[in-house]
Amino acid sequence: MTGNLNRNLNIEWTRAGKFPWCSQDPSAPYVILGIPLDETVTFRPGTRFGPSSAREYAPALEHYSLRQKRALVPDNYYDAGDLVLPMGNVERALATIEVAVSSVLEKGQKFVAIGGEHLITYPLVQAMLVKYPDLVVIQFDAHADLRSEYTGTKFSHATVMRRVVELLGPGRLYQLGIRSADEEELKESQGLSHIFYHQALEPLKKIMPELADKPVYLSIDIDVVDPAFAPGTGVPEPGGITSQELLDALGYLAGTNIVGVDLVEVAPAYDFSGQTGLLAAAVVRESLLLLDSGASKVQ
Amino acid sequence: MTGNLNRNLNIEWTRAGKFPWCSQDPSAPYVILGIPLDETVTFRPGTRFGPSSAREYAPALEHYSLRQKRALVPDNYYDAGDLVLPMGNVERALATIEVAVSSVLEKGQKFVAIGGEHLITYPLVQAMLVKYPDLVVIQFDAHADLRSEYTGTKFSHATVMRRVVELLGPGRLYQLGIRSADEEELKESQGLSHIFYHQALEPLKKIMPELADKPVYLSIDIDVVDPAFAPGTGVPEPGGITSQELLDALGYLAGTNIVGVDLVEVAPAYDFSGQTGLLAAAVVRESLLLLDSGASKVQ
Amino acid sequence: MTGNLNRNLNIEWTRAGKFPWCSQDPSAPYVILGIPLDETVTFRPGTRFGPSSAREYAPALEHYSLRQKRALVPDNYYDAGDLVLPMGNVERALATIEVAVSSVLEKGQKFVAIGGEHLITYPLVQAMLVKYPDLVVIQFDAHADLRSEYTGTKFSHATVMRRVVELLGPGRLYQLGIRSADEEELKESQGLSHIFYHQALEPLKKIMPELADKPVYLSIDIDVVDPAFAPGTGVPEPGGITSQELLDALGYLAGTNIVGVDLVEVAPAYDFSGQTGLLAAAVVRESLLLLDSGASKVQ
Amino acid sequence: MTGNLNRNLNIEWTRAGKFPWCSQDPSAPYVILGIPLDETVTFRPGTRFGPSSAREYAPALEHYSLRQKRALVPDNYYDAGDLVLPMGNVERALATIEVAVSSVLEKGQKFVAIGGEHLITYPLVQAMLVKYPDLVVIQFDAHADLRSEYTGTKFSHATVMRRVVELLGPGRLYQLGIRSADEEELKESQGLSHIFYHQALEPLKKIMPELADKPVYLSIDIDVVDPAFAPGTGVPEPGGITSQELLDALGYLAGTNIVGVDLVEVAPAYDFSGQTGLLAAAVVRESLLLLDSGASKVQ
Amino acid sequence: MTGNLNRNLNIEWTRAGKFPWCSQDPSAPYVILGIPLDETVTFRPGTRFGPSSAREYAPALEHYSLRQKRALVPDNYYDAGDLVLPMGNVERALATIEVAVSSVLEKGQKFVAIGGEHLITYPLVQAMLVKYPDLVVIQFDAHADLRSEYTGTKFSHATVMRRVVELLGPGRLYQLGIRSADEEELKESQGLSHIFYHQALEPLKKIMPELADKPVYLSIDIDVVDPAFAPGTGVPEPGGITSQELLDALGYLAGTNIVGVDLVEVAPAYDFSGQTGLLAAAVVRESLLLLDSGASKVQ
Amino acid sequence: MTGNLNRNLNIEWTRAGKFPWCSQDPSAPYVILGIPLDETVTFRPGTRFGPSSAREYAPALEHYSLRQKRALVPDNYYDAGDLVLPMGNVERALATIEVAVSSVLEKGQKFVAIGGEHLITYPLVQAMLVKYPDLVVIQFDAHADLRSEYTGTKFSHATVMRRVVELLGPGRLYQLGIRSADEEELKESQGLSHIFYHQALEPLKKIMPELADKPVYLSIDIDVVDPAFAPGTGVPEPGGITSQELLDALGYLAGTNIVGVDLVEVAPAYDFSGQTGLLAAAVVRESLLLLDSGASKVQ
Repeated sequence: MTGNLNRNLNIEWTRAGKFPWCSQDPSAPYVILGIPLDETVTFRPGTRFGPSSAREYAPALEHYSLRQKRALVPDNYYDAGDLVLPMGNVERALATIEVAVSSVLEKGQKFVAIGGEHLITYPLVQAMLVKYPDLVVIQFDAHADLRSEYTGTKFSHATVMRRVVELLGPGRLYQLGIRSADEEELKESQGLSHIFYHQALEPLKKIMPELADKPVYLSIDIDVVDPAFAPGTGVPEPGGITSQELLDALGYLAGTNIVGVDLVEVAPAYDFSGQTGLLAAAVVRESLLLLDSGASKVQ
Repeated sequence: MTGNLNRNLNIEWTRAGKFPWCSQDPSAPYVILGIPLDETVTFRPGTRFGPSSAREYAPALEHYSLRQKRALVPDNYYDAGDLVLPMGNVERALATIEVAVSSVLEKGQKFVAIGGEHLITYPLVQAMLVKYPDLVVIQFDAHADLRSEYTGTKFSHATVMRRVVELLGPGRLYQLGIRSADEEELKESQGLSHIFYHQALEPLKKIMPELADKPVYLSIDIDVVDPAFAPGTGVPEPGGITSQELLDALGYLAGTNIVGVDLVEVAPAYDFSGQTGLLAAAVVRESLLLLDSGASKVQ
Repeated sequence: MTGNLNRNLNIEWTRAGKFPWCSQDPSAPYVILGIPLDETVTFRPGTRFGPSSAREYAPALEHYSLRQKRALVPDNYYDAGDLVLPMGNVERALATIEVAVSSVLEKGQKFVAIGGEHLITYPLVQAMLVKYPDLVVIQFDAHADLRSEYTGTKFSHATVMRRVVELLGPGRLYQLGIRSADEEELKESQGLSHIFYHQALEPLKKIMPELADKPVYLSIDIDVVDPAFAPGTGVPEPGGITSQELLDALGYLAGTNIVGVDLVEVAPAYDFSGQTGLLAAAVVRESLLLLDSGASKVQ
Repeated sequence: MTGNLNRNLNIEWTRAGKFPWCSQDPSAPYVILGIPLDETVTFRPGTRFGPSSAREYAPALEHYSLRQKRALVPDNYYDAGDLVLPMGNVERALATIEVAVSSVLEKGQKFVAIGGEHLITYPLVQAMLVKYPDLVVIQFDAHADLRSEYTGTKFSHATVMRRVVELLGPGRLYQLGIRSADEEELKESQGLSHIFYHQALEPLKKIMPELADKPVYLSIDIDVVDPAFAPGTGVPEPGGITSQELLDALGYLAGTNIVGVDLVEVAPAYDFSGQTGLLAAAVVRESLLLLDSGASKVQ
Repeated sequence: MTGNLNRNLNIEWTRAGKFPWCSQDPSAPYVILGIPLDETVTFRPGTRFGPSSAREYAPALEHYSLRQKRALVPDNYYDAGDLVLPMGNVERALATIEVAVSSVLEKGQKFVAIGGEHLITYPLVQAMLVKYPDLVVIQFDAHADLRSEYTGTKFSHATVMRRVVELLGPGRLYQLGIRSADEEELKESQGLSHIFYHQALEPLKKIMPELADKPVYLSIDIDVVDPAFAPGTGVPEPGGITSQELLDALGYLAGTNIVGVDLVEVAPAYDFSGQTGLLAAAVVRESLLLLDSGASKVQ
Repeated sequence: MTGNLNRNLNIEWTRAGKFPWCSQDPSAPYVILGIPLDETVTFRPGTRFGPSSAREYAPALEHYSLRQKRALVPDNYYDAGDLVLPMGNVERALATIEVAVSSVLEKGQKFVAIGGEHLITYPLVQAMLVKYPDLVVIQFDAHADLRSEYTGTKFSHATVMRRVVELLGPGRLYQLGIRSADEEELKESQGLSHIFYHQALEPLKKIMPELADKPVYLSIDIDVVDPAFAPGTGVPEPGGITSQELLDALGYLAGTNIVGVDLVEVAPAYDFSGQTGLLAAAVVRESLLLLDSGASKVQ
């Protein structure tokens, strides 16, 4: 897809972001990337402000994680700001993301990407696979996102994990907390991914043995938690897990070889009190620590 | 009560509602009825917009239920729009509801009614009893609503279940998730209903055997869930169940002979992010499937 | 601290508050005190409106507690309104609070104080210790608040429990539901308090035997519950307990010798639907009953 | 209408309101009356919280009016709280209002009534006419409210000024700022009232000579100002006057024999920033001064 | 642009919209078209909900216009619902709009289109020019939208009027109320359009003679009014006209040969009280009457 | 006041702010200073987020001013971020501001300060007077702020202009748009300042001749505009000027010797749609241009 497109791609980042506990050094080993793609959500738009929302609420949190019993060390992290994306042209935007992230990976850095809509996971995984051909993906999500097409397009927030499965091959995607899907997509995608319904932490514990020695990518759709805990999202789905369960699951992953993380579908316009941005900030903090810990223990 | 009142009653529905996955055929076997009575709530008003709120958020949901493992089949359902109600005259409004719903039942249709305030359950049960004399009622609610009078009136959202018990006779009302009541009303109404405090799913499992072979009516006050899950309601009560527990309870009822459902007290003005409307839409979807499944299995 | 300061202190209350189920008699044995200190919260301000928020939503609740199976008896309670505090001078404000509350205690009354920020706990405990030298304090909170200094000051919402420990002596503070702290403060304050992470009810049951025969003071920071249940607070922290767990914990304390209560950090401006004010009102109701019950059983 | 109804009417006020600059003396010559009727508004309900909204925001204002160059003198004013009204029975509610206000007038007091919906003007004028048979009424409003019937009822917020005209007789109602009406009602009500479109201050200056020597009643529907200035109302209408023009018009009336005032249709739930409550408080302040000034100059 | 694209275009409308005072007859002479394009706004997205917002608030308005002294006659109007648009592909979306609207025009119908973002004006004018080659366009807007390119694309909400000028030829675009532009775009586009700054009604009166005998298209960007009057828009600009001035300007156009209207950039998510949707509904009502009146007088 | 206090003052700025069209060069001739003092507002707090609100909304605006017909040239401006202030100690905070700003002035830079509450004007003018002994101050404000004391303190948002007058001497303060004051403060402060009520632009034109040759400082309280235009402020006052009038007044000042500007009382928590932040950003843009233009013409 990025064939001759990327000859003309413009890779530009906004000024360095203000996520706290980050150094001003662009060559820090772990980077926060804002990827504000906001194109294909069919219900409520607004994920373009997801990265700035996480940055706005992070100062309410400590830099120390009681779950991982470690603190962020500013020298290790850099907030690269937001990637500037073309509007109204999804294919070009996806190519831009892939090229931008590939160049981050080429420098040996690891990233926590903040969306933006879930579709960003496609070019992110595309870039990751070059470096980690045996990558497995753990998805926290309310929606299976396994449709083969949606509203006449192949690239959409509702098809993204199907596209990701096509990149990975069958059996390398684990889907946790799923509570919304279409009978059609479930039938069609049988055997492609491991789906676990309604819960996240218990299934995670079950699949843990299968993850050993593998490079693991986390794709966290904020709507995996109930709308009560993250109202600021485009397509909320009632009946979700608690934010405690999500944070516990992340804490549980400490020590695993986490090689990249994305957090998507944060749309702050629908959240009056800021709890979604706050949870996003906490997820970013835990994810930064995961990148770090996994690296030190597994590599 | 509907004695000579209904000679002059004007039964009029607004244009067909836009709840998705419904046919345009008014004679479909299962109908959605908007009953926007908004008169006697003593704290915050606004349930008149409950039906339109459920319709507005339904497009965010799939038509397939992972809990019941069945999908809505559009031909089976019709959204009748909202009943036009006189304002400032509760007795006349209740009579209008009863007459309107009776005519739906006479056509052999079953309904999911969306309130409006809880008081609509009175005329709905009144109409149901004509067809199902051995009806039992399961109420999901934060409040017992068993007062014999409230602010000088017999017909109020705070007295409605007492009135319903008077219609049903003692022992045929099951109240789940109750966490607010008055010592007076509890004493007075002893022996009239089966009250279960704080929880919904576990008590439901217990009473299941008593429901066999009986036509069951569900009255779901959205405030049974904690305000965190349904802030858009007139008299929220802290300490409630989760939306997951409510949806699980509905799923658990699949196969039971559910003959009618109402969902009440959705007041979207107090919900910024739309989660109450979304939960309401999910409850309507599950309820439509319940009506359908019960029929096929029990009749 | 109150040495020569209090010669010039002006102790003035706004007009009697409108919390329901209270008498108009200022000499009732149990009083509600609004203490709207709103000075040192570093993230979002606004706790000055905490007391009026609890009063505004209380009418949505019954005066009967299903948990304690007792009802408020209006003759027992008085709502003293809000203490008028100087602005921009924390030391003077703290001295004002101490003097005002001491005079309440001297009249033999017990209080439920509604903040205001958490820093009010310092002068409240200061006053309590005169009367109850063997006081123990149970704190429900997301944050440990044990720093020795914060932003260059010793008196801050982030240092308050360290100051309280200095008043009490080590081992007499129990901290429940904690999920945010700094590695530094944890190390420094080791041995000073009993910290229990993430949970409140289970640890409470464990420490119960240690509380027997002791006068117990409750300091309830509303942010102990998850932001989903109490979005209206200045420094929310994701991953908290439910409002059900908090109310259950209070109910569990019935019979204990509760001699004073504060409820702090309610900031209604960040809560669209009023659920924080509502929960605050429920906490006040349960607390008033606790004061009463403990007294009758223990004294 | 109040024939045998009022034998059983219960006249009860909530505790004295907290509008600032009022004495605690119920026999003060000027009283604020909360009349929270909230029954017949067909679009968005919620005017029951109008009185408490005015009280909540009044502390942001000075007690001195730069327009009237006079200050409120607390001894002159009393805030009677809110009248307790039956729910779901408009006729009974109207009778209750009439009886309650008549008894205020009989004590020689004058009032500023805060609604509630516009329909309260009917019983208020009914009571006023007993004392002031030659009363004229000035209405500030976006809507003419002159329909003879609405949704099948004679008593509604959309018919109230037609009913008032029937009480007053033709030619004694002046309607300012009108920008919404139905061709039907305009035709039917020709000759009954003096209608002035879109503006308020200029027409007021024109009619001033006709008001001399007459007792004048003001009925101020907050929706006369543009929704930009008073978003908190049930049936907002774009294209209105500014709040400056409304306040200037009130200031212009200083010296006129104002014998009673109502301010209606404040529905705070639709106003996020409180500007409607604030404007309501300013209107109440100016109105209290008008009652006072007119009295001293004209009687 | 629509060359071989439209061979595969799918033209589909959602169910008929619920704008009041419309018949159910799709062949009515005047149609309301929802065109929810929501792709290229660089600040805040959400105009996809513009059409439903206008429909939601219309019931608060009368069907009679005091400005035009005429009422909507339901038989004349039809609400076609919203056009279904592909996501993430602006060129395809624009082609879809052009084809859909052309087919409306071919049936001899006139339209009021509700956006969606301002970019929809491009395909709408494209289609209009086939029928009205001497079309002139009057634009009400805060922004000149005359850039030749924006963020690397030719089709954007910030370039749309430059594209429209290219279709029309120089001198046939009148821009009213402009208060934001770039020095670059002003220089570049000199001579192409007639720009009037800050005001709308006075300039309109001035250009009136030039409009005689010409078919006139209105493009109304809701942000022409100050954010105080229409907060619900993506790129608000302070210092605008009042809603009164906009409505007066529309009223002033009665009798002119208005052959088509669009209303764009209504984004309800940023409007808490609904005043933007309400103003949109009023603009649609006035526009429907304009279409009708102009036709009868000029053709 | 800054006598021996400033020996221990800690002058620290947060990371450079993200106001657009600024260079990264701290020695640019014009600087933006965030001064988030949020201590003495007696009604609603929250001005600490004023600077970040202006920065957040600035991207919605062009860098070109149609009023001044000039564009910001990034090299000329630098956004210094926010000054870190001690909490709960107003005197220390004021001293910190004075020292920090003095050092900016000593480097020959001019500033636009964004508050924070109005009290910041005191130390800002204190610092300015060292450099410009014949400074005159133009204040745009709803409130006179001339009290000699307020709630027992001399340093408060309600006394600030009295303190400023004491620094300047009588006759050098011009107050525009005033619509709220106390009879007491007006009497007491007679002769000290030039007060102009309700309007801003017309009085400004009148005083223009008196300003010639003098260094002028602007203090802009955002509440000078009506709450409709700037709802996000702590003590809004109905009946204000439009945002158009404020921006016109600033444009009118082009060419005057403006030597410093502050913009205060922006409290974004009370503004749902962001119009206050947007207006603040526009005021900052115009102010930056004013600093620049005045300098070039007058010096």
